[in-house]
Amino acid sequence: MDAIKQLTSGLDTIWVVLTAAMILLMEGGFALLEAGFVRQKNAVSIIMKVFVDIAFGALIFYFIGFGLMYGKDVGGFIGITGFFMGGDLTHIDLTISHETYWLFQCAFVIAVISIVSGAVAERINFRAYILYTIAMTALIYPIAGHWVWAVNGWLGKLGMVDFAGSAVIHALGGFSALAAAIIIGPRIGKFSADGSANIVPPSNLPLASVGAFILWFGWFGFNSGSTLSATNSSIGHIAVTTMLAAASGSATCILFTMFRYRKADPPMVINGALAGLVGITAGCAFVSDVAAIIIGAVCGIAMVYATEILESKGIDDPVGAFPVHGISGSIGTIAVGLCAQPNAIREGTAGLFYGGGFGLLGVQLLGLIVVCIWGFVLTWIFLKLINRIVPLRVSRDEELVGLDVGIHGVPAYSQEDGFIDLSELKNSK
Amino acid sequence: MDAIKQLTSGLDTIWVVLTAAMILLMEGGFALLEAGFVRQKNAVSIIMKVFVDIAFGALIFYFIGFGLMYGKDVGGFIGITGFFMGGDLTHIDLTISHETYWLFQCAFVIAVISIVSGAVAERINFRAYILYTIAMTALIYPIAGHWVWAVNGWLGKLGMVDFAGSAVIHALGGFSALAAAIIIGPRIGKFSADGSANIVPPSNLPLASVGAFILWFGWFGFNSGSTLSATNSSIGHIAVTTMLAAASGSATCILFTMFRYRKADPPMVINGALAGLVGITAGCAFVSDVAAIIIGAVCGIAMVYATEILESKGIDDPVGAFPVHGISGSIGTIAVGLCAQPNAIREGTAGLFYGGGFGLLGVQLLGLIVVCIWGFVLTWIFLKLINRIVPLRVSRDEELVGLDVGIHGVPAYSQEDGFIDLSELKNSK
Amino acid sequence: MDAIKQLTSGLDTIWVVLTAAMILLMEGGFALLEAGFVRQKNAVSIIMKVFVDIAFGALIFYFIGFGLMYGKDVGGFIGITGFFMGGDLTHIDLTISHETYWLFQCAFVIAVISIVSGAVAERINFRAYILYTIAMTALIYPIAGHWVWAVNGWLGKLGMVDFAGSAVIHALGGFSALAAAIIIGPRIGKFSADGSANIVPPSNLPLASVGAFILWFGWFGFNSGSTLSATNSSIGHIAVTTMLAAASGSATCILFTMFRYRKADPPMVINGALAGLVGITAGCAFVSDVAAIIIGAVCGIAMVYATEILESKGIDDPVGAFPVHGISGSIGTIAVGLCAQPNAIREGTAGLFYGGGFGLLGVQLLGLIVVCIWGFVLTWIFLKLINRIVPLRVSRDEELVGLDVGIHGVPAYSQEDGFIDLSELKNSK
Repeated sequence: MDAIKQLTSGLDTIWVVLTAAMILLMEGGFALLEAGFVRQKNAVSIIMKVFVDIAFGALIFYFIGFGLMYGKDVGGFIGITGFFMGGDLTHIDLTISHETYWLFQCAFVIAVISIVSGAVAERINFRAYILYTIAMTALIYPIAGHWVWAVNGWLGKLGMVDFAGSAVIHALGGFSALAAAIIIGPRIGKFSADGSANIVPPSNLPLASVGAFILWFGWFGFNSGSTLSATNSSIGHIAVTTMLAAASGSATCILFTMFRYRKADPPMVINGALAGLVGITAGCAFVSDVAAIIIGAVCGIAMVYATEILESKGIDDPVGAFPVHGISGSIGTIAVGLCAQPNAIREGTAGLFYGGGFGLLGVQLLGLIVVCIWGFVLTWIFLKLINRIVPLRVSRDEELVGLDVGIHGVPAYSQEDGFIDLSELKNSK
Repeated sequence: MDAIKQLTSGLDTIWVVLTAAMILLMEGGFALLEAGFVRQKNAVSIIMKVFVDIAFGALIFYFIGFGLMYGKDVGGFIGITGFFMGGDLTHIDLTISHETYWLFQCAFVIAVISIVSGAVAERINFRAYILYTIAMTALIYPIAGHWVWAVNGWLGKLGMVDFAGSAVIHALGGFSALAAAIIIGPRIGKFSADGSANIVPPSNLPLASVGAFILWFGWFGFNSGSTLSATNSSIGHIAVTTMLAAASGSATCILFTMFRYRKADPPMVINGALAGLVGITAGCAFVSDVAAIIIGAVCGIAMVYATEILESKGIDDPVGAFPVHGISGSIGTIAVGLCAQPNAIREGTAGLFYGGGFGLLGVQLLGLIVVCIWGFVLTWIFLKLINRIVPLRVSRDEELVGLDVGIHGVPAYSQEDGFIDLSELKNSK
Repeated sequence: MDAIKQLTSGLDTIWVVLTAAMILLMEGGFALLEAGFVRQKNAVSIIMKVFVDIAFGALIFYFIGFGLMYGKDVGGFIGITGFFMGGDLTHIDLTISHETYWLFQCAFVIAVISIVSGAVAERINFRAYILYTIAMTALIYPIAGHWVWAVNGWLGKLGMVDFAGSAVIHALGGFSALAAAIIIGPRIGKFSADGSANIVPPSNLPLASVGAFILWFGWFGFNSGSTLSATNSSIGHIAVTTMLAAASGSATCILFTMFRYRKADPPMVINGALAGLVGITAGCAFVSDVAAIIIGAVCGIAMVYATEILESKGIDDPVGAFPVHGISGSIGTIAVGLCAQPNAIREGTAGLFYGGGFGLLGVQLLGLIVVCIWGFVLTWIFLKLINRIVPLRVSRDEELVGLDVGIHGVPAYSQEDGFIDLSELKNSK
């Protein structure tokens, strides 16, 4: 039996390591997506933020976040061991090592902060962003995550179900993104004096598209890998619902924008695929294939409307972080309460449409509201605090010239074919 | 023994899910490859077609295609269960679930339609393309696939061997692409009045190259994953022949174009790697390493000549879909009949060069011809039918301005650094 | 027990095949990174070199290199079987097949040669580069690799430890790159007459960044996959130290360049992540998490200084191959001698900081020096020899116009929207 145990542990470990690597590759997807959607003059700056996400995010989550999220529980509210992977973690009872588990969770926290990076694109101060990243990965996400996913988290104990994070990752990230977009205000020129929204074409749609394909790929790791065990019999089903929801979100946005705008709108199609993926993340293990298709379609259409509403309200979210993550994440969380199949979650539980009554649905709604308010309010508070240390927003000149040259001293794209002679520059002064 | 069974099933499931995800990432590769090869003004439109492939392809294959391909067999010709994953599928006897199997097959069908997208680039009507995608993924590919790969398919029963689809995927896709390229006609300006071919440099070769590397990566999933079982002892060999054929196709095209054109021709080198990969797809499990190297080299050179011949015939295939997939797929299918090692396929079977006589070779040729004609003719018929509903081709104006702005209302690349004030535009009217 | 054996072998095989595929995808990462860092006029040429790496590298390593590296040992110095995977390889005692093992090792050799490609970017003759690739993959790397990694290699027998190749891959590659950069000389215009370095912005930082993310992803395959067995209990730890060192290298370079240059310098941040990854490669299985963080930070800062020193010495290394691979690889190799945890390597062994004394440290230093000198000197000799056959460097005109058009006849990026009528061009002559 030892051989079996060793095999099981090995199998589960490579499953989690490989899927964690896939999720981490999603940072490359976020970088491409966002660099492609923003203006050329800010393409480097948004990628530098992704580097902040992955670099500071991983370290801070190692030092602090993981402990608060998965450490020994106090009152269902917070963890108090596991900082630097130390202290008592025996309550985490898995076939994989605690470190392997950390890696997977680390990939998640990096995804959360990357959601926010898009909403503040093209105008946030780089130093302020670093501080916010620390707040998010040390406190905001880990504490909310504890409530839902830790062994004794109070929302989880109430029965809230969020398989791979429509609520904990995407709704939280999306509502945090909304708060950030509101506080920091719209980009110069985004809205006319009369409040009408102005447009600018994305700088590089091929890059953005490939970003979406990479995210789609990573999502198989995100959702299927969340089993944390390779012998979990849901893995195939999870991968299939993930695929179908993404396809449905994308196909729906193709057809819907052809109908609504008389053209298949590329940014909406890209975001439609992502909306479908976000929407299925909570329920991928629990809903049927057909439900997945419907969830994807609903999320796609809701994303289009949410994008329009946001603009009409004068809120500037350059890459659609809130419509994609906040709205679809909310829909996905609620969808579990509606469409969860009997006994898929646990013996005797089902969604409203399957005769489970309002029990599950109520808990899902409660949890969702709690998580969204938490993300929104804490982000609001932290950004206000950070603003006292360093201004949240770059100067007007920096914004106009672009953050790449303004902050990082280098353009995203250069067609120079010769060197710039620095000694001559100096002499001519 | 139950523990062993569970482990085996888990192991096979993650193997198939991970390799399916790798194949699906190939769509990102196709998108980059094609966006890089076409003109800048059509880069978005080709990527939108890839979204159609993956979104509509997955859904239609779920609704219809899978049933026709792998459902309960009728007469060796067609399947009649498995629509919406329903009905009797007990004849599919695998360690993985039917859904997991579907996901892998879904990744395949999406690859087929993506092959065609390249041949009609820069001029096909978007609505017509959606309809053709439905035809391909609902009918054309699934029926031919049934003949070769379903348990009782008539070509498979005759003994045709196509491990991961040189014939079923690539030759079928390539000959469909040829038909489509002929019907839709060349791009404006591609050929002079005297019939000579004109050229235009690819818009973004770095993107195209990276597309090829992603496809190369995905191919390990494509070929090795086709075992559908992680304990299949051929997996290592398959991966190695895949690697060697790709390296050989690429190296051959480097040397051959240096000899023929006095320069290592980047698009040919890129397509050479892909030609090698396509060529080894049928025989990866059955031929020796050295045979793999030879197959790669032959496919590389044949691809170069086929590209030239196509141009001399006035057929416009912008990304080389037919030379890469149609020709190399055919070579690869025949190569099994020549180079299959004794007993690698089944007891007592071998290719011509290994004393197996003309038996296997004959079946391979028959199957190849059937599949190619099927793809070519059905594509021809469907495109003619579709042309009665919506014109296959965009208008002259749309083609000249480019499909990105003409059809999708947005350019691929933008250097705008400020917003366009829509309210002013309206006022000035 | 046979079932267990089969499962183990299957599990190990898919682990190695999947991680090998991840490492091979790193070629796409190298291509993007280097194409993004060089000037636009040379972006295709650097990618063509990556194709040479992967195509010729794989074939030559199959024909010759693998035999010299892992064939039956003669005197601890060289292998003499295994050419074309033939001859006696029974001393390689693994659960995976010899072919599978070859694939993984092949991915490694391709990485080595890709390191050098960056240092000679924008000026090396393409034919000369092919010849050098053959020398590196047939002889230079395999022989040094034999000393450290083959069963009876003399450095390995002395006790040198290099888990996934900080020394064998990166220090060797980096010092070879240094030799190549010195021999071939700086790009025209890189240094002024007074010796001061001039600058040119990278042509495409978004591409370079995504290259880094792909490399980061591949590194999980590189380091974790080096266990060659999925039931190795170190896999999780390896993945975590890899992640932490990369995050640390990247975060350190963000902070350090903000302090030193008053801006977070994007190319340094990108290279900082890679420096951290290179540095942890030798010790990923043996050092603690905290040590990994420190190693990453030290490598990041050392990379910045090394880049400055190189420039001050008039050595032109366009993408920072030596600072990233040579310096960090050396630091990582030495770090094992300092930070290896007791008994992590083998019973009774530890680094200096853990009471292991100077034994391990001494061997690490010896091995490192040997490997670096070997790479530097052999590269020097081979490049001098190659220079007698074909000039190492392109002509002045080719360099000024750029290698893409000059050597490969095609630009990296084109905004042409119509075809160039070749017949008219001819008529007008």
